[in-house]
Amino acid sequence: MTLTPPDRLLDRIDRPQDLHGLSEEELQQVAQEVREHIIDTVGEIGGHFGANLGMCEVTVALHSLLDSPKDKILWDVGHQAYPHKILTGRRDELSTIRQYEGLAPFCSIGESEHDIMGAGHASTSIGYAVGIKEGMRLAGDTDAGRVVAVIGDGAMTGGVAFEAIHQAGGLGTPIVVVLNDNGMSIAPNVGALSRYFNRVRLNPKLWHAREGVEEKLTTLPGGIGAAFDRLGPQLKESIKSFWAPGLFWEELDWAYMGVIDGHDVRALRLALRAALEAGRPVVVHTATVKGKGFTPAEDGGLEGMEKWHAAKPKSITNRAPTVVAKPTPEKVAAAAAAPPQYTQVFGDALVDEVRRDRRVVGITAAMNSGTGLNILQKAEPEHYFDVGIAEQQAVLFAAGLALEGAKPVCAIYSTFLQRAFDQIVHDVCLQELDVTFAMDRAGLVGDDGPTHHGVFDIAYLRCLPNITLAAPRDEAQLKHLLRTALTQGGPFGLRYPRGEGVGVALPSVGDVRAIPVGRGEVLREGTRVALVGYGSGVGKALEAADLLAEGGLEVTVCDARFAKPLDLELMTTLATEHELLVTVEEGVLAGGFGSAVWEALNDAGVAVPRILRVGLPDRYVTHGKPALLHAEVGFTGRDIARRVEAALFAGRGEVLSEA
Amino acid sequence: MTLTPPDRLLDRIDRPQDLHGLSEEELQQVAQEVREHIIDTVGEIGGHFGANLGMCEVTVALHSLLDSPKDKILWDVGHQAYPHKILTGRRDELSTIRQYEGLAPFCSIGESEHDIMGAGHASTSIGYAVGIKEGMRLAGDTDAGRVVAVIGDGAMTGGVAFEAIHQAGGLGTPIVVVLNDNGMSIAPNVGALSRYFNRVRLNPKLWHAREGVEEKLTTLPGGIGAAFDRLGPQLKESIKSFWAPGLFWEELDWAYMGVIDGHDVRALRLALRAALEAGRPVVVHTATVKGKGFTPAEDGGLEGMEKWHAAKPKSITNRAPTVVAKPTPEKVAAAAAAPPQYTQVFGDALVDEVRRDRRVVGITAAMNSGTGLNILQKAEPEHYFDVGIAEQQAVLFAAGLALEGAKPVCAIYSTFLQRAFDQIVHDVCLQELDVTFAMDRAGLVGDDGPTHHGVFDIAYLRCLPNITLAAPRDEAQLKHLLRTALTQGGPFGLRYPRGEGVGVALPSVGDVRAIPVGRGEVLREGTRVALVGYGSGVGKALEAADLLAEGGLEVTVCDARFAKPLDLELMTTLATEHELLVTVEEGVLAGGFGSAVWEALNDAGVAVPRILRVGLPDRYVTHGKPALLHAEVGFTGRDIARRVEAALFAGRGEVLSEA
Repeated sequence: MTLTPPDRLLDRIDRPQDLHGLSEEELQQVAQEVREHIIDTVGEIGGHFGANLGMCEVTVALHSLLDSPKDKILWDVGHQAYPHKILTGRRDELSTIRQYEGLAPFCSIGESEHDIMGAGHASTSIGYAVGIKEGMRLAGDTDAGRVVAVIGDGAMTGGVAFEAIHQAGGLGTPIVVVLNDNGMSIAPNVGALSRYFNRVRLNPKLWHAREGVEEKLTTLPGGIGAAFDRLGPQLKESIKSFWAPGLFWEELDWAYMGVIDGHDVRALRLALRAALEAGRPVVVHTATVKGKGFTPAEDGGLEGMEKWHAAKPKSITNRAPTVVAKPTPEKVAAAAAAPPQYTQVFGDALVDEVRRDRRVVGITAAMNSGTGLNILQKAEPEHYFDVGIAEQQAVLFAAGLALEGAKPVCAIYSTFLQRAFDQIVHDVCLQELDVTFAMDRAGLVGDDGPTHHGVFDIAYLRCLPNITLAAPRDEAQLKHLLRTALTQGGPFGLRYPRGEGVGVALPSVGDVRAIPVGRGEVLREGTRVALVGYGSGVGKALEAADLLAEGGLEVTVCDARFAKPLDLELMTTLATEHELLVTVEEGVLAGGFGSAVWEALNDAGVAVPRILRVGLPDRYVTHGKPALLHAEVGFTGRDIARRVEAALFAGRGEVLSEA
Repeated sequence: MTLTPPDRLLDRIDRPQDLHGLSEEELQQVAQEVREHIIDTVGEIGGHFGANLGMCEVTVALHSLLDSPKDKILWDVGHQAYPHKILTGRRDELSTIRQYEGLAPFCSIGESEHDIMGAGHASTSIGYAVGIKEGMRLAGDTDAGRVVAVIGDGAMTGGVAFEAIHQAGGLGTPIVVVLNDNGMSIAPNVGALSRYFNRVRLNPKLWHAREGVEEKLTTLPGGIGAAFDRLGPQLKESIKSFWAPGLFWEELDWAYMGVIDGHDVRALRLALRAALEAGRPVVVHTATVKGKGFTPAEDGGLEGMEKWHAAKPKSITNRAPTVVAKPTPEKVAAAAAAPPQYTQVFGDALVDEVRRDRRVVGITAAMNSGTGLNILQKAEPEHYFDVGIAEQQAVLFAAGLALEGAKPVCAIYSTFLQRAFDQIVHDVCLQELDVTFAMDRAGLVGDDGPTHHGVFDIAYLRCLPNITLAAPRDEAQLKHLLRTALTQGGPFGLRYPRGEGVGVALPSVGDVRAIPVGRGEVLREGTRVALVGYGSGVGKALEAADLLAEGGLEVTVCDARFAKPLDLELMTTLATEHELLVTVEEGVLAGGFGSAVWEALNDAGVAVPRILRVGLPDRYVTHGKPALLHAEVGFTGRDIARRVEAALFAGRGEVLSEA
């Protein structure tokens, strides 16, 4: 349901240049219309929400001054780029965002010439901007476009952003960074940089005050003014620096402008115009309100802002939270019976582990509720650390803790852990430290798409010495394997998928048991074919086995549980007693679990039967509901069953009934 | 040859506590004796040099105040930790450093209880320090040790150091960072941070000046003093900030002390004592001279310092550069005939490519001469970029350049490229950008040991979509494959080993040709056995083939050239026509090249013969000369030949003559 009036200015904006002729009042109105379009659309279909509402005026101001795509705007992460998508020809497709075959959840080079870079991980935009601008210079482009990176204050903690600031300052590359400072990542920001931003943000008059300060000082009464003049330019500089909150930037040879009201189009245009003309690296520090214009977010304090970072489908009606009818007792019972999310099970289990062993601590990199560590934060705050968007430091910090005998658990999504690969290789595995990596969102994550799919971790971790790798087939096994990680010692990687568990009963605290490392489990005994699953692959293997059984073929199914070390004894038995081994893993196949099975058998000199590897393809997979994606890539029980049949019966004239 | 006097104070220092009773004059003397010990020893055996000479006084001052290992000193990278090794019981073993089975080149947890953390990559010490100190707090240790991280100004550009500073400032963790500011990495530092340090370092009186500044200001004549009092504490703070060069740190909630003369033990102890008692994060900024006390380095300007970053064996005699006798004409000829280093060939080839195609640029992360990019810098400075120790930014910067149509080549050692893994996955391969990764030092690097061996790249890159992976078997192929990378388009990884080429003739510029992607080459045709090498593995395969031929078995040898995509047609032929396939790669086997060969054959439904995978083991390999290491892990032609014989003839009663 929409409240759109028939005469929206926004309906006339089909490309960003359509903003150029508008007055500042009209631009301010367009920004508000963009906001309402987002509230209406995302409230209906679900998606990133709060940060987008905060960026409507900034986006309008930028596109009103720039000539995209010749001028280039780079959106860090891109979850705040919905206004940009609306203003660059995708207004009417916004309702398809994050849906299978619809608009991409973040910026996407392939989707629009106005999406200059793709990203779903934070802190990359400034680095790209330096490269693009220097690339223009190198090409000798005398009429080169202007380059603007828009980055949130949360993303500023990522070390690579600092590396880029450092390079741009060093080269003097003329780019503009718009610092979108709303004081939040998904959760409130942490750390020293956040305190610094808070100090600055709390005094939005600073910039205006600064303009006249030198002049005013020299006219102070009582001879002070004259004295200032006598003290010379260095002292003047120092006084200026007090008024300027940007010394952090100025030390790195950036010009600083701030703090600009991020919801005032006129003020933004004034500042941005000056920044774009400066011919050197400039940061424009804007204060925005996450969830601006949507009362439950804006007035809900930190909790409201965190809750409305993203909106659930059908969560908003008539621009207010949807009033949910009191559910029937049947619905309540059904909801209670639904399996818990892996994230929730992990969070609860980690609290149990902390209470069992006080050396255990949990570490998140700004994904407190996404990883379930909000549960730990609430229950055992002393054993909880949030390092901010700084995955590398999350792992180094864990390494330091482990050296002091703690048992740190880094809870980082599989895809984000890629940022800390060198720390895993060089600072944890080489040092043989007792650090556990809890990799939520392993496998295809769904709506967030290719930047977020966690499909490489089996391969990129399996090559490392000293690490143990395990994956639970269900939420009960997750508890047992977390215990295993914390009692086994040494580096340990534990991967589990996004979403609901499979619905098995959870063991009570007293019934959680460490699983012998490198020991798999036979779940079903059959003949001819052995399906060997890893993690979420086990469920697919069981589905396939059911379908094959319907067709008359009882196959063996086993849960490897560990990808490193493998259960060589079990694999040898399976290889010896079956004519076809099928490995099933939710990860890319190159160097993955299936290859591990072959490597182990081959190196042990076992006669290896045919091996069919089922997993994810050697390409980046799009966004959409996991079930759709699994069907697209053939990662379903039905696909596995068909491939097994084909492998067994091809060319023999036998046909199993169509399962 | 040594000038050591018989009555060195240093000879009485067997553990750091032996420094505690000495006077500051004696400590200053010990520092000088440490320096002389390093000049004498490292000048004879070779090793890291300049940074160590600069750290003698800092190390003595730290150990004179601290109680190691209860108190913990963390040495960033560790190549400046020779004085620390000397003062912690390893004085007389220094002459074994970097040798096989001798002292480790960097700090090593296993070597000494005084080596708190291990590292060979930069920028990790502060992150560890935060973890260690928070770990002590968590353990409730009321008598916890003090924690000091020593980091160079070069390493400060690494983003993870910034992440750690940010976290420590946020938590208020009471650690001390000693910033060893000598203005150099291996080469002179670049970027904005370096300019900032330069501004600060050039005025070493700043710290002393600052102490009395507030007092002096309030007593200024003409009523200014009183006016300052009236202006209140905020203005005073601002004036203080002018005098303090540490505002960068203070913005991040660190206390700053500096600039301290890093060669004055008394001044260092004064500052460090205050810092250790501060109970909050403190940075002590010390100015040191790289190569201090060794005239050719100290007085040789930047060139001298870079030249003496490390000393070659027998390069110093009587504390002066060894005078080399004029070589005989025979020696000159022999030297000219020696094969060039891969690094040199790459550097020359890149210059040729830049001259062929002006879109080509080279990027280094502070390893200008190590990567051969010093050649490019000299020949084509506009096409050369050094981002500092910031591998992540090197790759993002390349991505941005590629978006503007440039053809960037990131020349980064295999081991250091691990730092940029997420940028490769998310910012290059997902975006299908035209970026080449030139991975020097792929394989076992020798003296630098496990932190530097480049043994994981085949596995961690092979799992990524869209990337092409290649490796030359000799220096001529390196030229052809670099051309291939720059004409093929898309992400391209090119690995080659440390050290000399194999001695083949180099093609002239006009004869360099792109190699068809995914096409291998048969080098030698034989029967029964096919050896398939990748990169430096080809040479080992050829050696093995020679030995086997001596024993009467002519085998096939082929160069795969590409690990991705593989030459499936060639592999199929080899598999069909031989009873044993042997893959040879200088990388870990899990997920490596050998597995790629099996994966390709298996997925294509080819009947796979026995496969023997030769490569590096699933453990971290120690330091020492490559030949020793290759022998240790069985990566030699002889080992391969023996394993082939064993595989072919085991149990059949046949024996080949001992090769």
